[in-house]
Amino acid sequence: MATITCFGELLLRLTAPGRERLLQTLALDVHVGGAEANVAVSLSRFGHQASMVGVVPDNPLGAAARAELSRHGVDVSRVRSGDGRMGLYFLEQGAILRPSEVTYDRAGSAFAIADPAGYDWGTLLAGAQWLHLSGVTPALGERTAQAAIAAATMARQMGVRVSFDGNFRPKLWRQWRGDAPAILRELMGRAQIVFADYRDITVVLGREFAQTDPFARVDAAAHAAFEAFPQLEVMACTHRTPHSVDHHTLSAQLCRRDGASVHAGSLDVAGIVDRIGGGDAFAAGLLHGLIENMADSDALTFALAAAVCKHSLPGDFNLVSAAEVRSIAEANGFDVRR
Amino acid sequence: MATITCFGELLLRLTAPGRERLLQTLALDVHVGGAEANVAVSLSRFGHQASMVGVVPDNPLGAAARAELSRHGVDVSRVRSGDGRMGLYFLEQGAILRPSEVTYDRAGSAFAIADPAGYDWGTLLAGAQWLHLSGVTPALGERTAQAAIAAATMARQMGVRVSFDGNFRPKLWRQWRGDAPAILRELMGRAQIVFADYRDITVVLGREFAQTDPFARVDAAAHAAFEAFPQLEVMACTHRTPHSVDHHTLSAQLCRRDGASVHAGSLDVAGIVDRIGGGDAFAAGLLHGLIENMADSDALTFALAAAVCKHSLPGDFNLVSAAEVRSIAEANGFDVRR
Amino acid sequence: MATITCFGELLLRLTAPGRERLLQTLALDVHVGGAEANVAVSLSRFGHQASMVGVVPDNPLGAAARAELSRHGVDVSRVRSGDGRMGLYFLEQGAILRPSEVTYDRAGSAFAIADPAGYDWGTLLAGAQWLHLSGVTPALGERTAQAAIAAATMARQMGVRVSFDGNFRPKLWRQWRGDAPAILRELMGRAQIVFADYRDITVVLGREFAQTDPFARVDAAAHAAFEAFPQLEVMACTHRTPHSVDHHTLSAQLCRRDGASVHAGSLDVAGIVDRIGGGDAFAAGLLHGLIENMADSDALTFALAAAVCKHSLPGDFNLVSAAEVRSIAEANGFDVRR
Amino acid sequence: MATITCFGELLLRLTAPGRERLLQTLALDVHVGGAEANVAVSLSRFGHQASMVGVVPDNPLGAAARAELSRHGVDVSRVRSGDGRMGLYFLEQGAILRPSEVTYDRAGSAFAIADPAGYDWGTLLAGAQWLHLSGVTPALGERTAQAAIAAATMARQMGVRVSFDGNFRPKLWRQWRGDAPAILRELMGRAQIVFADYRDITVVLGREFAQTDPFARVDAAAHAAFEAFPQLEVMACTHRTPHSVDHHTLSAQLCRRDGASVHAGSLDVAGIVDRIGGGDAFAAGLLHGLIENMADSDALTFALAAAVCKHSLPGDFNLVSAAEVRSIAEANGFDVRR
Amino acid sequence: MATITCFGELLLRLTAPGRERLLQTLALDVHVGGAEANVAVSLSRFGHQASMVGVVPDNPLGAAARAELSRHGVDVSRVRSGDGRMGLYFLEQGAILRPSEVTYDRAGSAFAIADPAGYDWGTLLAGAQWLHLSGVTPALGERTAQAAIAAATMARQMGVRVSFDGNFRPKLWRQWRGDAPAILRELMGRAQIVFADYRDITVVLGREFAQTDPFARVDAAAHAAFEAFPQLEVMACTHRTPHSVDHHTLSAQLCRRDGASVHAGSLDVAGIVDRIGGGDAFAAGLLHGLIENMADSDALTFALAAAVCKHSLPGDFNLVSAAEVRSIAEANGFDVRR
Amino acid sequence: MATITCFGELLLRLTAPGRERLLQTLALDVHVGGAEANVAVSLSRFGHQASMVGVVPDNPLGAAARAELSRHGVDVSRVRSGDGRMGLYFLEQGAILRPSEVTYDRAGSAFAIADPAGYDWGTLLAGAQWLHLSGVTPALGERTAQAAIAAATMARQMGVRVSFDGNFRPKLWRQWRGDAPAILRELMGRAQIVFADYRDITVVLGREFAQTDPFARVDAAAHAAFEAFPQLEVMACTHRTPHSVDHHTLSAQLCRRDGASVHAGSLDVAGIVDRIGGGDAFAAGLLHGLIENMADSDALTFALAAAVCKHSLPGDFNLVSAAEVRSIAEANGFDVRR
Repeated sequence: MATITCFGELLLRLTAPGRERLLQTLALDVHVGGAEANVAVSLSRFGHQASMVGVVPDNPLGAAARAELSRHGVDVSRVRSGDGRMGLYFLEQGAILRPSEVTYDRAGSAFAIADPAGYDWGTLLAGAQWLHLSGVTPALGERTAQAAIAAATMARQMGVRVSFDGNFRPKLWRQWRGDAPAILRELMGRAQIVFADYRDITVVLGREFAQTDPFARVDAAAHAAFEAFPQLEVMACTHRTPHSVDHHTLSAQLCRRDGASVHAGSLDVAGIVDRIGGGDAFAAGLLHGLIENMADSDALTFALAAAVCKHSLPGDFNLVSAAEVRSIAEANGFDVRR
Repeated sequence: MATITCFGELLLRLTAPGRERLLQTLALDVHVGGAEANVAVSLSRFGHQASMVGVVPDNPLGAAARAELSRHGVDVSRVRSGDGRMGLYFLEQGAILRPSEVTYDRAGSAFAIADPAGYDWGTLLAGAQWLHLSGVTPALGERTAQAAIAAATMARQMGVRVSFDGNFRPKLWRQWRGDAPAILRELMGRAQIVFADYRDITVVLGREFAQTDPFARVDAAAHAAFEAFPQLEVMACTHRTPHSVDHHTLSAQLCRRDGASVHAGSLDVAGIVDRIGGGDAFAAGLLHGLIENMADSDALTFALAAAVCKHSLPGDFNLVSAAEVRSIAEANGFDVRR
Repeated sequence: MATITCFGELLLRLTAPGRERLLQTLALDVHVGGAEANVAVSLSRFGHQASMVGVVPDNPLGAAARAELSRHGVDVSRVRSGDGRMGLYFLEQGAILRPSEVTYDRAGSAFAIADPAGYDWGTLLAGAQWLHLSGVTPALGERTAQAAIAAATMARQMGVRVSFDGNFRPKLWRQWRGDAPAILRELMGRAQIVFADYRDITVVLGREFAQTDPFARVDAAAHAAFEAFPQLEVMACTHRTPHSVDHHTLSAQLCRRDGASVHAGSLDVAGIVDRIGGGDAFAAGLLHGLIENMADSDALTFALAAAVCKHSLPGDFNLVSAAEVRSIAEANGFDVRR
Repeated sequence: MATITCFGELLLRLTAPGRERLLQTLALDVHVGGAEANVAVSLSRFGHQASMVGVVPDNPLGAAARAELSRHGVDVSRVRSGDGRMGLYFLEQGAILRPSEVTYDRAGSAFAIADPAGYDWGTLLAGAQWLHLSGVTPALGERTAQAAIAAATMARQMGVRVSFDGNFRPKLWRQWRGDAPAILRELMGRAQIVFADYRDITVVLGREFAQTDPFARVDAAAHAAFEAFPQLEVMACTHRTPHSVDHHTLSAQLCRRDGASVHAGSLDVAGIVDRIGGGDAFAAGLLHGLIENMADSDALTFALAAAVCKHSLPGDFNLVSAAEVRSIAEANGFDVRR
Repeated sequence: MATITCFGELLLRLTAPGRERLLQTLALDVHVGGAEANVAVSLSRFGHQASMVGVVPDNPLGAAARAELSRHGVDVSRVRSGDGRMGLYFLEQGAILRPSEVTYDRAGSAFAIADPAGYDWGTLLAGAQWLHLSGVTPALGERTAQAAIAAATMARQMGVRVSFDGNFRPKLWRQWRGDAPAILRELMGRAQIVFADYRDITVVLGREFAQTDPFARVDAAAHAAFEAFPQLEVMACTHRTPHSVDHHTLSAQLCRRDGASVHAGSLDVAGIVDRIGGGDAFAAGLLHGLIENMADSDALTFALAAAVCKHSLPGDFNLVSAAEVRSIAEANGFDVRR
Repeated sequence: MATITCFGELLLRLTAPGRERLLQTLALDVHVGGAEANVAVSLSRFGHQASMVGVVPDNPLGAAARAELSRHGVDVSRVRSGDGRMGLYFLEQGAILRPSEVTYDRAGSAFAIADPAGYDWGTLLAGAQWLHLSGVTPALGERTAQAAIAAATMARQMGVRVSFDGNFRPKLWRQWRGDAPAILRELMGRAQIVFADYRDITVVLGREFAQTDPFARVDAAAHAAFEAFPQLEVMACTHRTPHSVDHHTLSAQLCRRDGASVHAGSLDVAGIVDRIGGGDAFAAGLLHGLIENMADSDALTFALAAAVCKHSLPGDFNLVSAAEVRSIAEANGFDVRR
């Protein structure tokens, strides 16, 4: 069991019921989410001491988001209140050949406009063994980019290990014309674990990877990443092949500096219930595996099972225990458990 | 963009929630529908000026049906109020091997009993470029059959192009012992576009088509239809292969007088959300394609994508834009759009 | 049409909505169930006179369970009230690779603690042609085991035919250290029809069956059962192959004393709506087929169709008529019925 | 405990959720109702053997209506299936100063069009001690009027006591220009108990009652009724004073041939949950009281409490036991019962 | 019947279900609202040609808001799309002594940030007889204040009559330190009808009104307003006395330049369903009365009845016809209408 | 701000929706509750560090109950898992004259059967300033009675102040024939604050209090209690007058050893949303007031406002802040807060 601090934006997700178009009927289901919060909840469910750092508005929406993390065992005592609004996103769940659509409504959020000087990272990271960040945070603007870099920098100084999930979102970067490669290099350059595929590395290093075999292509990208970032130990990602909106195939890959490249899967994910948060579930699963000193292939199998499991659950959070993930990883049968 | 008038019955659909049997629990979801109204809503969503002609009772049910069409941009100023009740149908959604079941409750509806003389077609069609009708309307009784023929006749006189969707419903015809072949010939004999497969042509012309290849069979039926109806330009239909209640395969075919026969698909439609309205979505899609002067194969691909899309949406209406259908037709990826 | 008495516990099932984890949101759907009650409802829906014998608490929960059986035509005049609580179970519906989970909460139920002397079987079975029991009842404790044996014994004396569904639940037996083999032998030794596969027979007779072909293995087990139980006429079971939580393949087998072994299926059950009660639907289907003097293969095909149909319906009950099951058995098409 | 046969139409009620306008959102709650069915359910809940006679269509709607009565213990074996549709009504619940509105949709119902010769009253009333009818049934048309008179006539011949609830609905009578006074006289002329106020008697006897005191006015009307109908023993009614849509005051009155006039109430009914079925609950309550040989004032107090209780329950049915009504009649406290 | 243009912001309201705290359970009901949109919907329901002018984002939320107005007959062809987000507000419905709470989330909305030069008022007001504005619009910021003044100015030039509802919101004005008195004077100085009480006039004219009788105080304020604004013809307001969160008493007052002061009410509003939009319903009611040339006291009675009626309906809109309001105004009885 | 430990059973409440009878429709709303847990949540919401001690089963129900307390900020690290089931209660919400009904289903709960030796009170109370208990816990059985006495005894030893809420439940005591007076004396004899009215003191001391004035009667009971229990400082209670199920009047009283008797209220509580938990809200409110060193009358006014507020909120918990309660206590207006 480890102590992990996650830094990122808490969001409210407002989802059209069933497979309806957004506001086809005038009702919305609400879930709490956010890439890093999803990781925190997963890790808490796996038995770790997960703690969230962030900013929410001082209103019922911010309070509800904090409360929901508390409900799942995440320490929210370091989520402070600030000016600005609650970050929202609206989700419409697709089906068959009609893709799901996200409508973001996070501009001007308390998290986005918070002064980076407001985070006292020495205090916030005290006691943590890991800091988890994602590429969504710096993509939100100058201020969050500065805060993310400050967090990673202080983590390195304090000997806190850093996990970074690429999560490249070009739309967000374009809005404020942020220098994504430079900023992401600052973050990847401080991480021991990076969740990224070849596209992320292309963005960060400005290099193309043209291998036709998808695993070889990630190997090449990982090789480049290990060269560029000497502190980096592990690069991992999933491979997703969507056959339709409801039916994907997933596999996973973990690369080590020594050239080791472990694969897991592929698993058939048919009848997807809710795809959001699959990548975060994978990240949390792998962190858990590595923290627990599983062999790389066991950790990767666990992480992939966690990711697949998320697709079976409504909402952003992967509300399962480590034992449940293990049981899925071991394919312990698909009939009712009584 | 065109101006299209749709003539037909507005219905309220009352659906058992989820996959329950009808009234298994005592709740019903409500949708507005009706073959021609579904086409009107699709066309409005595609950017056309769609207008509905029909009759509803002067009560909250009739008002709700009109309001729902307005919500989707259809002009309902020519839907008048009349004596009689609101046409209803109750729907139970099947699953796996248990088929969906419709329980009609449309006898005595305001639309069915309306005096055909009450429609002043010269005024109702003023400004329209297209009139869309379906075989459901004449199947309802003597009065609606007369009204449909009068509408098509006036459309021809005014140079309004006519689109006719066969939609053959033997149960309805039997109830009043209507002479389906004679009446449908009146309507098909005035249409430029007919949505029909070989079974409809067999009914109308009293000829069998015995080809084993389904596309060849439709070609033969189309040939017969073009011979019988000199004004007819296009005959189109879908081919549906159901593997289970939730999983069909769809393809489509468009025939021209010159013998050209274009095919689209086949597309796998697995995990069907709601199959009702698929044919109407196809008709609207093809009308859009032809109005927009797409090549026949592009128009057919668009129409098939529209039909498939409908299967992913709860309710009778295909609540998508032309851009969304194009994106599905081009298979632009099945992962979440952010 | 026959008169059938079912003896067993009525349960309330409390289910998390959709595919949520239990109490992920604080709402529960309620269904009434119980292995023998499920059979009673099916048989009533098939046109038989089904009657329930059991005990429920004298409170709104017991009343609701009785009322729900009445709603489906089952005679509940012999379900009496007694001390103790209502048996409950909580259900979480899995998806993809995450299995469904049952949390039982039936300890101390009115049924479990009822004095076996409280059942006057001569009166309770008067007029019955069949008595249906399952292995769940004796597994609940000494008292219910005694009651089940007394019921079967009196049935034999009165010439009432006995149907017994194995339903072996090791967890329940372990709780009170009941001698499952001895007690189940008492019950199987009085039944004309037993629903059991090789595992049940292994438990009862203490013999392993090592054939690799699953049908041959059941044949061997049936052979042993016919040897051990001279009154036994039929042994039947389903074969279930789960590909994922939502996708199983089902076939079925019926063995006669003369060595006849009839098979049905296999049928693909994809997009499972609710798997609970599938075995009870099979038992009711086969009882119906045999009561109606169908040929064995027709009866088995009917029973398998009934079992598959249950997977398409929310709740424990298979709310379909015999005509609907026949139509599924005959694969009469998967498109909407209008 | 008595055996009571109720003859009338089963209806499905479709209600807008909460206090919404009808179809403001596209969902409807469903309840089963009908004036005589409401009485049957109440009496069954009070411990009597209540039986329904009527006709429903042979479709899922008719089946659901029968099932719902069964659920509450009413014998529906004499509700037969027939041609025609299910009678429906749509309800919008008002509030404050906005009245509730009913939209009837019962034209052409299986009950309304059923051949009166189809009822074999000798068989249908065999074993009954009471027949309960209401003025809604003859108001539906010639056929139902004939059936109601035939039922009352046969009841008199067989010595079955007749209870008749006036329920005068001018709108229904006007639709077919039925001779309400003549027909209602036939029915009142065969009843031992009539639920009616002065307005009903005015309609039936063509006499005005001009007393300003409402109780005196009913006394005068009762005097006239007892003169006109020599078999009549009891006339009873409620007095309702609506202060707003949600807040009424209720009292009740029972008149005997000997001039005895008993009063109950008045009770304040504030925060009305659902007013529909209040009169039927009163009728059932009084029938129960008289059958149980309560003193008139006790019976009337019981009936008024039953009527008030109905206002606290969603749906048409008064789902309470006699003990619960007694407790309300005795005002046993308004705090939570634990 | 008149043609009325309403200028203001369209909002989505997200409401906690029942009387729950916001996000107590994670679901939200959605309604469309906005002070001026509420007036537009009311007027459309009363039979007028109401048209909305405003700006919404080009996303599913903006589209849903437009569609909902269309559904109620409001012309939305002049609601254009623009940059920025959808204005939202979250509502928690109080009860007993716990007040309802609004959490605004409208900063940065497409309406708030729209360039005032983007409105071509000559075109937008073509054909209108009335322009309706409220004090919410200028309170949103410099840009909307300019737009509102430009609209009123052009209306005066074109001879379009102006209706202005004060709706003073100090919180909004403080946020951008707008000069409320000066800006509101510009608007009141161009209106023929002003909805305002003495507090609004105090803000605008900087004068206190100290009369203890509330009607006299409004008379005094009206006198001052008529002096300050020579074009002003009518000032009207409601008087609200809240006894608890669910129980208010409402009366109303209309003042004319000649000193005439008409009163209506008071009406008891107990069991409030939804208080939001009551003031807008009053404004729409009075506009309707004056447009229809009712006597002042009739118009005021109608307006007050409309306001009270709104309290009985979920959502912001007063979904009633003029006939329904008249019936409430005439207190036509509170029992169910059948 | 104080540190308060609450010891008691966590319960799941399963409530019929709206004002339905239990299982009238087959759905249940779920809330977490329990007298002491309700106090803990209130205190946490008021800003205190509340901690729960108890036992729940190791299943999803127990986990959900813990999670829900966490969500509201209560420390659940001392709620351990144990054998047995989750305590449940089913609630039906009455209306008008029909009382709400609780159906308990808590027999055999993990809390009830937990070994009292399993609580290490020295550790469990470490750091606490207050221990809060209620009379429900000892009423559950020998084991919980022992545990409660052990907790109070250790609290006294450690200088932790004890708050005890009488909550006398005769039904529970009768079930195990517990010596209520003796056991309750042990607990009251260790408390500084007791929530009790004259009935509780009668039970405990075996003395009647016959004063007709309700406040005088409580004064007399308090006098007796102060004599019997020398450590007792404060006795407080509410006075509730129910006018109907939905409409109560509440006042409150606080007595000191020196004979001081402070009163608050009375407040009219009309349109009750959910009465459960009102007493617990009062207890939490008074504890808060006294901890914060309010004057007795301010504390009592605060506590009464908290109790009234609870009646406006669905569920057992009083989900309000101290500021919100203060605002209610000060009657800061009942109109919408924007």
